This record gives sequence, structure tokens and C-alpha cells, in this order.
Amino acid sequence: MIDIAVLGCGRIGRMHCQNIHDSQNFRLAAIYDIDPDAASAMSTRFGARVAGSVEEVLGDTSLRAILVATFTSSHAQLIEAGVKAGKAVFCEKPVDLDLGRAIRCKMAIEDYQPLVQIGFNRRFDPGHAAARSQFQTGTIGELYQILITSRDPSPPPRSYVQGCGGLFRDMSIHDFDMARYLLDEEPVEIFSMAQALIDKDLEADLGDFDTAMVLLRTANGRQCCINNSRQALYGYDQRIEILGEKGMIQSGNRKPHETTTYTAHSSENASPYLHFFIERYYESFALQLEAFAETIEDLQPRGATLEDGIKALQLAEAANLSLTERRLVHIDEVVC
Amino acid sequence: MIDIAVLGCGRIGRMHCQNIHDSQNFRLAAIYDIDPDAASAMSTRFGARVAGSVEEVLGDTSLRAILVATFTSSHAQLIEAGVKAGKAVFCEKPVDLDLGRAIRCKMAIEDYQPLVQIGFNRRFDPGHAAARSQFQTGTIGELYQILITSRDPSPPPRSYVQGCGGLFRDMSIHDFDMARYLLDEEPVEIFSMAQALIDKDLEADLGDFDTAMVLLRTANGRQCCINNSRQALYGYDQRIEILGEKGMIQSGNRKPHETTTYTAHSSENASPYLHFFIERYYESFALQLEAFAETIEDLQPRGATLEDGIKALQLAEAANLSLTERRLVHIDEVVC
Amino acid sequence: MIDIAVLGCGRIGRMHCQNIHDSQNFRLAAIYDIDPDAASAMSTRFGARVAGSVEEVLGDTSLRAILVATFTSSHAQLIEAGVKAGKAVFCEKPVDLDLGRAIRCKMAIEDYQPLVQIGFNRRFDPGHAAARSQFQTGTIGELYQILITSRDPSPPPRSYVQGCGGLFRDMSIHDFDMARYLLDEEPVEIFSMAQALIDKDLEADLGDFDTAMVLLRTANGRQCCINNSRQALYGYDQRIEILGEKGMIQSGNRKPHETTTYTAHSSENASPYLHFFIERYYESFALQLEAFAETIEDLQPRGATLEDGIKALQLAEAANLSLTERRLVHIDEVVC
Amino acid sequence: MIDIAVLGCGRIGRMHCQNIHDSQNFRLAAIYDIDPDAASAMSTRFGARVAGSVEEVLGDTSLRAILVATFTSSHAQLIEAGVKAGKAVFCEKPVDLDLGRAIRCKMAIEDYQPLVQIGFNRRFDPGHAAARSQFQTGTIGELYQILITSRDPSPPPRSYVQGCGGLFRDMSIHDFDMARYLLDEEPVEIFSMAQALIDKDLEADLGDFDTAMVLLRTANGRQCCINNSRQALYGYDQRIEILGEKGMIQSGNRKPHETTTYTAHSSENASPYLHFFIERYYESFALQLEAFAETIEDLQPRGATLEDGIKALQLAEAANLSLTERRLVHIDEVVC
Repeated sequence: MIDIAVLGCGRIGRMHCQNIHDSQNFRLAAIYDIDPDAASAMSTRFGARVAGSVEEVLGDTSLRAILVATFTSSHAQLIEAGVKAGKAVFCEKPVDLDLGRAIRCKMAIEDYQPLVQIGFNRRFDPGHAAARSQFQTGTIGELYQILITSRDPSPPPRSYVQGCGGLFRDMSIHDFDMARYLLDEEPVEIFSMAQALIDKDLEADLGDFDTAMVLLRTANGRQCCINNSRQALYGYDQRIEILGEKGMIQSGNRKPHETTTYTAHSSENASPYLHFFIERYYESFALQLEAFAETIEDLQPRGATLEDGIKALQLAEAANLSLTERRLVHIDEVVC
Repeated sequence: MIDIAVLGCGRIGRMHCQNIHDSQNFRLAAIYDIDPDAASAMSTRFGARVAGSVEEVLGDTSLRAILVATFTSSHAQLIEAGVKAGKAVFCEKPVDLDLGRAIRCKMAIEDYQPLVQIGFNRRFDPGHAAARSQFQTGTIGELYQILITSRDPSPPPRSYVQGCGGLFRDMSIHDFDMARYLLDEEPVEIFSMAQALIDKDLEADLGDFDTAMVLLRTANGRQCCINNSRQALYGYDQRIEILGEKGMIQSGNRKPHETTTYTAHSSENASPYLHFFIERYYESFALQLEAFAETIEDLQPRGATLEDGIKALQLAEAANLSLTERRLVHIDEVVC
Repeated sequence: MIDIAVLGCGRIGRMHCQNIHDSQNFRLAAIYDIDPDAASAMSTRFGARVAGSVEEVLGDTSLRAILVATFTSSHAQLIEAGVKAGKAVFCEKPVDLDLGRAIRCKMAIEDYQPLVQIGFNRRFDPGHAAARSQFQTGTIGELYQILITSRDPSPPPRSYVQGCGGLFRDMSIHDFDMARYLLDEEPVEIFSMAQALIDKDLEADLGDFDTAMVLLRTANGRQCCINNSRQALYGYDQRIEILGEKGMIQSGNRKPHETTTYTAHSSENASPYLHFFIERYYESFALQLEAFAETIEDLQPRGATLEDGIKALQLAEAANLSLTERRLVHIDEVVC
Repeated sequence: MIDIAVLGCGRIGRMHCQNIHDSQNFRLAAIYDIDPDAASAMSTRFGARVAGSVEEVLGDTSLRAILVATFTSSHAQLIEAGVKAGKAVFCEKPVDLDLGRAIRCKMAIEDYQPLVQIGFNRRFDPGHAAARSQFQTGTIGELYQILITSRDPSPPPRSYVQGCGGLFRDMSIHDFDMARYLLDEEPVEIFSMAQALIDKDLEADLGDFDTAMVLLRTANGRQCCINNSRQALYGYDQRIEILGEKGMIQSGNRKPHETTTYTAHSSENASPYLHFFIERYYESFALQLEAFAETIEDLQPRGATLEDGIKALQLAEAANLSLTERRLVHIDEVVC
């Protein structure tokens, strides 16, 4: 059993607390939140002690690992502090909204044998993982194209959008990671298109967008199209499609149940898709933790690494540059 | 090219005329109908001559085959006359509403090297045929159970029901033939249940039913359930399911197109199923004719034979007996 | 929080312990098993005390409820003892393998204001529940037919079969309960057909069967067909279908994920269905407990009652009688 | 009945002859082909006269319409000659491989009250048409994004590729037309990406590609992604998807039948998709002719007009420019 502390008791942090509590591999030993009441509530619920400060957590040698679910702007610093304190660090995405800060974080911990996993949970979605696995066994042969559709049921409030870093860093970043996870080599070029169609004043008011399409290309010409929308009234739409020499693989959407209705007007009427990301990606959150536990045991990376987090952010930056300058961008242009 | 004459220009006969006209294997040489105007209309449309009488058709040595699409009560006599006149005979189902008459028909032509195909077209449905073919290649191993769902979009008018011979002889007979086509041996026992649920006075007024479930059992214990309904507002519902030792095969329903809609209320909303039997079984009508042409060439039976027609009718009789006497019936009880 | 004790730590009991532990409504206060080690393991895992005996549990006034997951033959007695001790009783199916014993149990507790829920969890399956709910809102109008398909991935070991009471009491009993749950009135007639097709010597050796079809009929002529098989290599096959005047509702099977593969040989290749009943009916086990908690609060029955348990057993008896005597049976024939 | 002549008896021309022959609205009066034997074969089959030359056809005042299915490079000239001879002209795509030539064709016939329909048949596909129709009735509200997937089962021979004008003019042009058919306003910007992945030497040898992704954007920011591949071993993959404010509409792929297989390895195994474009788009070829007949009657355009043909070609040119110059292109850049 690995003793772990959770930093941050917002919605994501609470979910991680529950999964750690349910896990056979971890013991939720301590909880910290800038708001002591939030930490207390979790402490009561799960029987973990409330830590008085981050330093206390980092100084507790009985803790093998920490899970960082605090404000985005604290992620990089907590990764650095955690690694330097000898902890294995699981950190929610993103590493930072600033690529330079993320790269400095990586450099700062290079000499500390860092064990860092970034919370790109979709890699662990059973469907997406099965699709990748099928592809890797050669079922469809050589890779030609990938399509990633990623739509949220509804947009976040403007208060959230304000500090989220923009659509590409906040939402598409999952898909940039997924694209890298599926492609057989790194993307080298990117072209992006984005618009404020759902909230028509979003660009004018906050300089952000809610509807986007992005093309990626690798050195060998594999193509990937990511399409994002902050709104899909029919539910969480998360699909991947891989086209290869010998066929195609798709990972499709999930419904709460498989009940269908047939009337004079339509057939095969099913439930809308699951509406909450925690429901849609239910298993992935637990599976990524299990992978983290295994990695702590054998030091073999399984989930997204810090480098993966940086590369996803780099793609988000490149997407922003492409959008701003309305041109094809080479990924190298955004390396610091 | 096989010269063929069509007897009977009702809805089914007209469909057969069109298919024969489109066929590369047949030449629609003559048309007969008790109503000369009906025959003329077809003649004009397809360029075939109007025959003045059945005898004329039978006496025309240039005609190799006849297709019988006349009133049910004339089928047996026309099969006999056609065979005796040396014609290959394609006859619409049923052979007759009376099992005894059907058996006498078979006996009457035994010595004439009869070439008779009965119009149980569903055997030629690409889906049902593919299901049977899959099963025969051993994909799912030994047979355990068969389920046949067979529902019409809406009930026929009472004027039709009046003379149709009852639900089992008129509607379920297709499914009795399909059951025999799929089972690996003959059914030996039958139990039926029928009700007038759609037209509540149907039993009282016409002694008929519109909703039924029938169980069949073979000597080796394979089981088959047929469920029929004269009404399915969502379209023609025609499904078969075969359960075997190693898996299952299903032949499903068909829609006019694969367009689906997704809203806040439901996902995967598709078109209702095809509503007309000619649409639903489109290919089967042409394919059964092509099979008839091949059989004429090589004398190998392909479609349902007269014996199959008789056996289906026997099952319908047995179903009626089971229903009337409210008991399990052995098929042998209804052999004349 | 309702304090509850679990009696019986076999596979089902352990699952209930976990669900109770996860529940916000119950506190797993005590655990009992005839094997102290089994009870200890659960106690360690969930922090509940090990009870030394059933009497101890029944005598503990702090316990509001008990969950019975012991050997089938102890169910009736534990229901009686629990109710008489003032406990709310959740009891796994079946009440007993003997209809008479089940009825005596009901009579024995009549005067004790019994609060008893029987573990027919499938009523709480989101898909099946949604199907019933859709039907009850009138979406498809008047009921005509119900089809229930219920197949296990593979047969239980003979050691299990030996004492299970036979296919109808052990497996089909879930479907008899589901049929009653969906039908708008009680079945009055039953006809059953069963065979040993998977394990060909099952009938000779143990007098049991593994493949069955059962027809039910209500007073108003609604029809229901249940088909059971102890083997479906493609996974747990649990479907219901409701045909009504205005359409059809289906509750379909579930896959672990929605990944599909397309090659030159086939399209839409998906994962086999979930293979374990705990996976397939995952939510239902928790939902039935939540219903039990609500019922304890307001005394309104939600799940299957003891009466439902008796009626399902009665249908199983009637099915056995029909099978043995090879005839249509009226349900009243099997009331003691 | 409209008397029509077909010019060109290649594969497409023969298909048109058959559809015209089957049509109730047209009489196939004359057939011309540069190869007299090809014309004769059609003449024999359908009973139409063989025309000795194009001039003969154009000079025949009894002919109301012509269908042009000759070599691409003759299309523009035959449209001009046909219109000037007072014929209604149905012309296969493309108008020409050269945008300038296509525009000059339009200008040349402007004063002749031209009645010209271009053979972009997919507009008449029942599924695609239903999708557009659903969208136009407001089911999903305001348009956000369109995705068009268009993959052939296998690449054409190099001999075909040599003179086809390149992937965008030959294959994607259908999708450019479909995009315009679905979008609520004209695209204004385009970015394309193309690669020779299937035939790796295609670019070096013939300067062409076989795998592409293209993004389109309208003035109001609606986005469209077209993905093309010359190879999809699982069959003809032709899908459209429309995302709107209130939901999504999809038009999916078609299989020859709905038979599925379930084994220990996979469930819902279906047939590969239809492999031939004539099968996949079966109804559309007849429906576009019926539309042409109606347009001849009432002069209201229904199918793709010459202007639509020009605009699709313009998009192909713009896609080529974007690819060559590796940049975002404004559609206006390619107007002559």
C-alpha cells in the first residue's frame, strides 16, 4: 500500500480522493486544501488526516506520493517541490498554461530521478485504449489518418473561461495528448481554425473561442484532424477514429444504458450520451491511478509523462500561433 | 432465355412481371388474368402478349415455364395442370389453404417429373440467406435455439382476412418455412398461443387472431420460437436469430437510409423501418426468380419445393390444432 | 445512516458488503458467516465487526436491517427470524426452492408488519428500468407481447447445478420476476419446453436442463416468451423487448466499451458482451440497496417483495409441471 | 415522356442508359459513342437507335435532352453545343478539369436560357438528402461544424490517375459540392493537406496524392473538414456529420444486409460496407434523373447546376493552391 496525499479538494480533487480511497494500492494518508473546511470534509469522509500545509506533506517521509489537484498555476511549482522532496508526483493537467514555465519545471527536476505522471486520463479510457491496442497489434496495418472528435455537453461559465488559458490549452490539450498517443510519430506541422459560434461575444470579450478544427501532420505524412466544440446538447461526444492500410478502428460514445424505442416516427431512439465527464471517463480515473501505483513499484512510465504534458502544451501553443497568424506552423517554431 | 407466362396480374403478379421483365434469364412471353384489362395493362407495359385463357398458355409449347400468382384457391389446380403440360411452375404461396388438397396436388404430379418452386421468397433475402450460410459454415457450431420475429406494419383489411385461412396459414406460414429452412432437422412438436389484441373483435367476428407466439421442437430438442403480430407501427419487423454452441447470428431489420439524429432528448434516432414488403424483401423476389431459372437449367432445386410448401402448411395446421385444443401437438397428428 | 448486518460472505455476500460500504445510506455494522475466516476477511476489509452468530445479529437492537446472502435453504428461516426480531430484511433470491416453504414464510410473518425486499436486482438495471418506465408513460400504448432473452456466458459447474433446484427455479426465476414486472397483469397460463443441449447428459445425470423456452399468457391475452440458455460464448445476453400498439421498446446488451473494427472481412466488429453478472448488472446491485434504504425510511415497497418472490417461484413450479406433463398449465394449479 | 439521347457508353454511360430505360419520365431515344460497337450493344439492349454523330443528336429536334457521359475533356464543349441546340443537358462531373474552361462554358451559354444539371448524384442519396432536410427543418438549430468522410474501397489504376486532374479535382470534388450543399453560406477560406500514403510513389511519379484532409471556413465561421482516402478495405465509406446548436445529424454507411455474428471474440460483426459506388449510391442515380425530368418540365433547378459545378472546381483549385503553397487560401484567389 502506497501512502499518498492529495493536494486540492475541488471537484477533481474530491474525485481523486474517492478513487484513492477505493483503490487497493493506495492509502489516502493526508489531504490538503487552501480551504481548511474543504480538506476537513474530505478527511471526515475518508478518514485521512488534514495536513496543515504543503510543506508538512512534503516533509512527511511516510508519504511516498502526492496527487496535485490544485489551481493550475501551482502545478509546476508543486511538481518541482514534490520531486525534490523525493515524492512520486501525480499532477492534474495542465502542467502550466505557459510552455516556458513547463519546460523550466522539467529542467529543474532532471537530476532528481523524477517520477511524474500527468493526469491525461483519456489514455486509460477502455475504449480509446482498446482502439490503440488494436492498432498496435497491426489489425489495420500502416497508419493513414486519425480523426478525434471532442465535444463537451455545454460550455463552462465565463468565470472559468477567463483564466483557463483559451480553448486549445484548456480543452484541445486532451486531444493533442491523445493524438500523440495514437500517432506513430510526433506531429511536425499544425494548422488551426477556431471561432466563437456558441457564445458569439466570446472572442470580443475574452479573446477566446468555442468551436475549432485543427489539422496535424507528421514527418511521414500521417494526418490527424481534431474537432472541438464546447457544446453538444446530446451529451459528451468523445470519439476517435483510426484509418489504416487494412481497415479502420473507432472508439465510440457511451450511453447510460442500451434502451431503445421504436415508433411510427423513428426507430432505434436511444438515450442521450452520458453528460458528465466523470461518468463518461469513469474507469479511466481509477485506471490511471493504478498505473501510477505500478509505476511507483517498477519505475516504468505508463501514463502521460511530464514530457508528454510539455509536448501537449507545445501543440496548444502552436495551434494558437497558427490561429493568430492564420498560417501553417511548424511545431519547432514554438519550442523555447 | 426462358419464355415464361405470368398468370394473375394482381399486386404480386405485377411485381413478378416487372422482375421477369428486368431479368436476363426470362422473357415475359405471355400474361393472363381473369380480368382482361389487368392483363392488357401489363401487356402494354412490358410488351408481352395477352393470353386468352389458361389453356392457351398451357398449350403453348414455346413457353417453358409459368408463374402462378392467381387466387390461392386456384394454385393447386394450376400447379397440376402446368406440370402435366410439361411446364416448370413457379407458384406463389400458399399451395392451398387445405393440407389435404396440397398433398393431393403433390401426388397428382409425382409421375410427371415435376419442377415446382413455391414463392417463399424470404429464403432469398440477402440477410436471412447470409445468416443461414454463416450457420452452415459452422461459425456458431451446434444449433441450440432459433427465434423468428415477424411483424407487419399494419393489419390487412377484414375483407382480406375473411378468406385468408387464418393467421397461421396466411402470415406465420412464411415463418414456418423459414424455421424449417434454418433448423437442422424437422420440427416434431408445436405449441401455439394466439390472440386478437389489435382488432379485439377479430376472434368473435371472423374466428381469427392477430398476435401469436409459437414454439417448435425438433427430435433432438432444438427449440424455435416464432412471434407474429399484424401490427408494428415502426415498420416491417423481420428478424431471425440463431443461437449455437459457439455464438449467435442475427439477421436484422432494414431502414431506407442510415441517417440519425442526436438531440438533448435522444441519440441515434433513425428512420422507421421500411414499410412495404416489396421494399423490405426487394432483392429476394428477383433472386428467387434467378434461382428458378437455374433450376430449370439443371433441375437442382434451390428455392422452396412443393414438399416445403406442404410441410409449411402442415405446421400451420398443427398450430391451429394446438391453439384450438390448447395443448402440445405432435406434427404427425396433422398428416393426412 | 442505517446500521445493517450482512449474513453470508460468499461471492454475492462480499459484493453486497462492498456496495453497503460504498453506500451513503447504510453503515456496515456487522458481518456473519458460518466460516469465521470469511467473515474476518470482510471485517478487516470494511471495518465492520464480526458477529459470532445469527442470534447475536438479531438480538442487536442497534441493527435496523439485515442482508441475507447465505445458503438458499436458510433464506426462509432467516426472513422469519429477522422480521420477528424487528429487522428490515433484504434477502437474496430465491426465497426457497420449495413453494410451500416460501408461502409458509409469508404466513409466518404476516402479523409482524414485515419489511422484506428480495434481491431481484434486474428490476433496477438502468436499461430494463428505463424500458419499463418508457412503457408506463404510454410511449408504445397498449401491451401486446414481451420477449425476454436471458443467457449466461457459460454453464455453472455440476456441483452447483446439483443443488440449485433446476433451471427454472435457479435461472429462469429472474425472468419470471422480470415478466411480472413488465406485464400489466398476472400471467395465468404457462407452457414450457426445456432440453439438455449444452451438457447432453444433464437430464440423465441430474434431471436438469440448460436450454429452455417458456410462453406465458395473461388473462387479457398478452403474450410473453422467455428464452434461456446456460451458454452464450459471446457474453452475458440479457435483453427485453416490449411490443405495443404504437411501437416497441428494447433494452439491449452492454459491452465493456464501444470500440469497433472494420476490415475487408467485416465491419462494426465490437467487443464481446460483458462476461460477469456483477459487471453486467453493476448499477442494479447498488440501486436495489438504495431502494431498500428508502423503503426502510417510508415503508413504501420499491423492489421485489416477498410476494413477488413467491409468485416468481410459483411460475417456476408451473414451468416444471408444464415440462413434466408436456402440457399447458394454469398457474392456479400450483398454488398450495 | 422526354426523349433523351445518351452520349458516351462507358461504365457510367451504360448505367445512365439503364436508369433512363427504367424511368417512367424518359424515353431512351438515341445513343452515341465514339466506338460504334459500344453504342450498338446499348442500342440492342435498350431498343434505342444508334446515332452516327453528336451533330446528328443535336440536330434531332425530337430530342428534348441529352445526357453527357463522354470523356471529361469533351464535357464543356458538349454542354455548349447542347444548350445552343436547344437541348436540356445533363452532364457528368466534372464540367472540366480547368476552371477557366468551365467558366468560359458558362459565359458561352448565358444568353441561351440554359437548362444544365451536373451529375453530382450524392445530393440525391436518400441518407445525405434526409440529413440535409432534417437540418433545414431546424432540428439541430444553427450550424456549427460539418465533417465529410469520403473514402473509396481501393485506388484507381495509375492509368486512370494519370489524366484525372488530381485527387482534389477527381475525388474531393464530390465532397466540395456536398460541403456547399450542406453549408448555409459559401466557403471563403480553405486549407488542405495531402499525401501519397497508399501508393508511396504517386507524388514522385504522377504528382498526385491519395490521402487528404481539407478545412473550409465560411464568412460566419462555420467550419467543415473533408477527409479523403483512395483506400478503405472495409468498403465504401461515405459519411456526413452536421453539428449544430441543438444537436447533431449523421448520414452513415450502408451494408448489403443487416446480418451480424457474435462469438467469443467479438460481437455485432457485420458485413463489410458496399464496395461499388453504383451499389452505394444506387437510388441517387435514378433520383437525379427524375429531378432532371421535373426541371425540364418546370425549369426549376433541383440538382447541381453548372454554377455549382464551377464552384466545386474552384474549391478544388483553391485546395491545390493551398497544398502547393502550404498556406491558407482565400477562395477569391482562384477566381479567374
